[in-house]
Amino acid sequence: MSDQRVLRPTPISGFPEWSPEIRSVEQAWLDHIRTGFERYGFASVETPSVEALDVLMAKGETSQEVYTLHRLQEDADDGSDARLGLHFDLTVPFARYVAQHFNELTFPFKRYQMQRVWRGERPQEGRYREFTQCDIDVINVDQVPLHFDAELPRIVHEVLTGLDLPAWTISVNNRKVLQGFYEGLGIADPIAVIRAVDKLHKIGGDGVRAILLERAGLSVEQAAACLELASVKGADASVVTEVKRLGVQSALLEEGLEELGFVLESLADLPAGSVVADLSVARGLDYYTGTVYEAAFDDDPAYGSICAGGRYEDLAGQFIRRRLPGVGISIGLTRIFAKLVAEGRIAPGRSCPTDVLVAVPSAERRGEALRTGALLRGRGINTEVFHQAAKIGKQIQYASRKGIPYVWFPPFEDGREHEVKDLGSGEQAPADPAEWRP
Amino acid sequence: MSDQRVLRPTPISGFPEWSPEIRSVEQAWLDHIRTGFERYGFASVETPSVEALDVLMAKGETSQEVYTLHRLQEDADDGSDARLGLHFDLTVPFARYVAQHFNELTFPFKRYQMQRVWRGERPQEGRYREFTQCDIDVINVDQVPLHFDAELPRIVHEVLTGLDLPAWTISVNNRKVLQGFYEGLGIADPIAVIRAVDKLHKIGGDGVRAILLERAGLSVEQAAACLELASVKGADASVVTEVKRLGVQSALLEEGLEELGFVLESLADLPAGSVVADLSVARGLDYYTGTVYEAAFDDDPAYGSICAGGRYEDLAGQFIRRRLPGVGISIGLTRIFAKLVAEGRIAPGRSCPTDVLVAVPSAERRGEALRTGALLRGRGINTEVFHQAAKIGKQIQYASRKGIPYVWFPPFEDGREHEVKDLGSGEQAPADPAEWRP
Repeated sequence: MSDQRVLRPTPISGFPEWSPEIRSVEQAWLDHIRTGFERYGFASVETPSVEALDVLMAKGETSQEVYTLHRLQEDADDGSDARLGLHFDLTVPFARYVAQHFNELTFPFKRYQMQRVWRGERPQEGRYREFTQCDIDVINVDQVPLHFDAELPRIVHEVLTGLDLPAWTISVNNRKVLQGFYEGLGIADPIAVIRAVDKLHKIGGDGVRAILLERAGLSVEQAAACLELASVKGADASVVTEVKRLGVQSALLEEGLEELGFVLESLADLPAGSVVADLSVARGLDYYTGTVYEAAFDDDPAYGSICAGGRYEDLAGQFIRRRLPGVGISIGLTRIFAKLVAEGRIAPGRSCPTDVLVAVPSAERRGEALRTGALLRGRGINTEVFHQAAKIGKQIQYASRKGIPYVWFPPFEDGREHEVKDLGSGEQAPADPAEWRP
Repeated sequence: MSDQRVLRPTPISGFPEWSPEIRSVEQAWLDHIRTGFERYGFASVETPSVEALDVLMAKGETSQEVYTLHRLQEDADDGSDARLGLHFDLTVPFARYVAQHFNELTFPFKRYQMQRVWRGERPQEGRYREFTQCDIDVINVDQVPLHFDAELPRIVHEVLTGLDLPAWTISVNNRKVLQGFYEGLGIADPIAVIRAVDKLHKIGGDGVRAILLERAGLSVEQAAACLELASVKGADASVVTEVKRLGVQSALLEEGLEELGFVLESLADLPAGSVVADLSVARGLDYYTGTVYEAAFDDDPAYGSICAGGRYEDLAGQFIRRRLPGVGISIGLTRIFAKLVAEGRIAPGRSCPTDVLVAVPSAERRGEALRTGALLRGRGINTEVFHQAAKIGKQIQYASRKGIPYVWFPPFEDGREHEVKDLGSGEQAPADPAEWRP
């Protein structure tokens, strides 16, 4: 054995993995998020980790991030396998799912999906190549009520609030406001402006102005107005008045402001500052057409979005001849969790779910200990029976090391009582296994 | 839109996917299994889906089943990526995990792991290329108490019983019994015999006898004795007597029979026939050294094992210079679930988790409906508020199609009462949103 060559394993960059103490917190987060989504009636969907490459590439954009699969021992007739790739988000698989199961679904279809996704990034600090996303989307045939544009950030607000995170803000905007405003200014290519404004947080106002003037061909006045719009922020519907005061007019702008106002008014009961309008949010590379969302940590906005989403005109047009508009938002679970773990901001949880360890005082008392364990488990209490007869001190030490809060002592001789020791307080008292609660 | 080319998606063989009604049952199964594992104090571990190829290949056996990952746009410096593969079981990643986190863990370490695994199988009916396994293992430094060999099938028995499956049986055997018996018969290569006997269910007694005589070089008497041993079955420790009656002796056989007897006696309180000794169970291709487990459906044994596991001498020897024996068992969740879905034996669950739909009788009453929804949700009731003001009949129809059991009517005018309609019974009655329970 000691002569054997040992292949010492090292962590693979970009593929996070947790100790049991941290994993138990992650699991609690996942449960909390799931419960939050179900509280609003969203149904669980899971799709395979793998899609046909032509499905993944239907939008053609993120080609370089896809991991393709190959059998290790590939041979000539493996053509079909070579056309498979791991999904890089949950939106594309969901679009394919809706198209494929269209006739089985009831619309508006409200689904949540919490799964790992993969991106073929180069190994680099802080870049995840496997991570978990938690998505909710509502899709419907032809038209999705605006109600949902307000409901989604409310759900995310509730969910994030329950996670006890460092301060964060959900920013809301509406692409119609941006596009309508630019059109009202007489700008020929509003999309180019959206792309430029999307860089505001990275390159600053001067950088954006330079792009607008030099590359997008705007006049000085047009560029100034675009930057003025991007500076509008506010916690309530007064932002609508503020935008109107800029004096630009177009039907699309009007429509967008009405939608944005509706969303903000619908969320007015949330704590001040938790959901705000931010007219600089553009989600430039995405296919959103109305409401857009983006959330970030207040103390580290440069870390980027921890949630993002918006309203899209058509989810699955590339897969089915039906118009399926929708609105959705994605919580970047691993992005949030892994950052907090790295910064030591996640308090480790229990290293095991055991509530009570039943001690085995002697081999003869083992049966009694097993019966006690079964009784406690039958009452929903997570119970370990110590794995062998051993000195009581050793058994208490095992419980203490594992963070098990109670040790149970079955009677050491017939006619005696059961006792339970609270390892936190050190107190030991008689207890009835048919009634005791941790 | 209608001119657009549509890429009609088709299911990919071997990658199962469920409708929301079936997915809700699968989720309930996963929750049930998790709860069952935690009830015995097993801690959750998850590992990345991906391992370094040299880790996956450390045992060298299943090479042709591994999916390797490649970036779609691969370039020359992608060497590191080319060395990654998707895990094909949860044992190899767990071995690597234990070696890597050795100093952070408390032993005996009891973990459960419920994750998807991938195998690069050729597309073929009934072969899964992505499936979920639910594993529990106990590992310890140097020695694992026999107590756990009995605890694991008990846990699996409890978990499977709660899933309301068609009848199944967990078979137990001990590799020391087989090896010791063959050694007692004077057979030079007991492993060759184990391999042959493992094929008994596939090729029958005559087929095994032929291999034993022709390839393993056994005498007619030796082959007959081996087949006689393999025919021993029994629900209790009487099998030990039965094996002893065959008159073969060796120290290893003695040891194995003692262990097997201990496991059977420890499980004697379980319903008759749920866990049985079956001396033909060999788990031929695996690295087990003591207790082995295998479970199958009684009405379709040819479908193969739905759970499998056993005791191994060393889990992580290829990764760390410590001896880490263990015992584990794996529930083939997808193997079980997908078969029952295909056979129509899974009763579809709810298509959404909503308990109650709050109707919106008119646009003016929307605020009242939203407040009612919030109140119900705050009390832990999964609640949808209908997405727009609409005819009540339409809203009831939506609830009915989605399988939502109750529809809530906020007051149609001030001063009136809330009412709730039970869609099952059709009854409608006044209700207080601060007190009502579904």
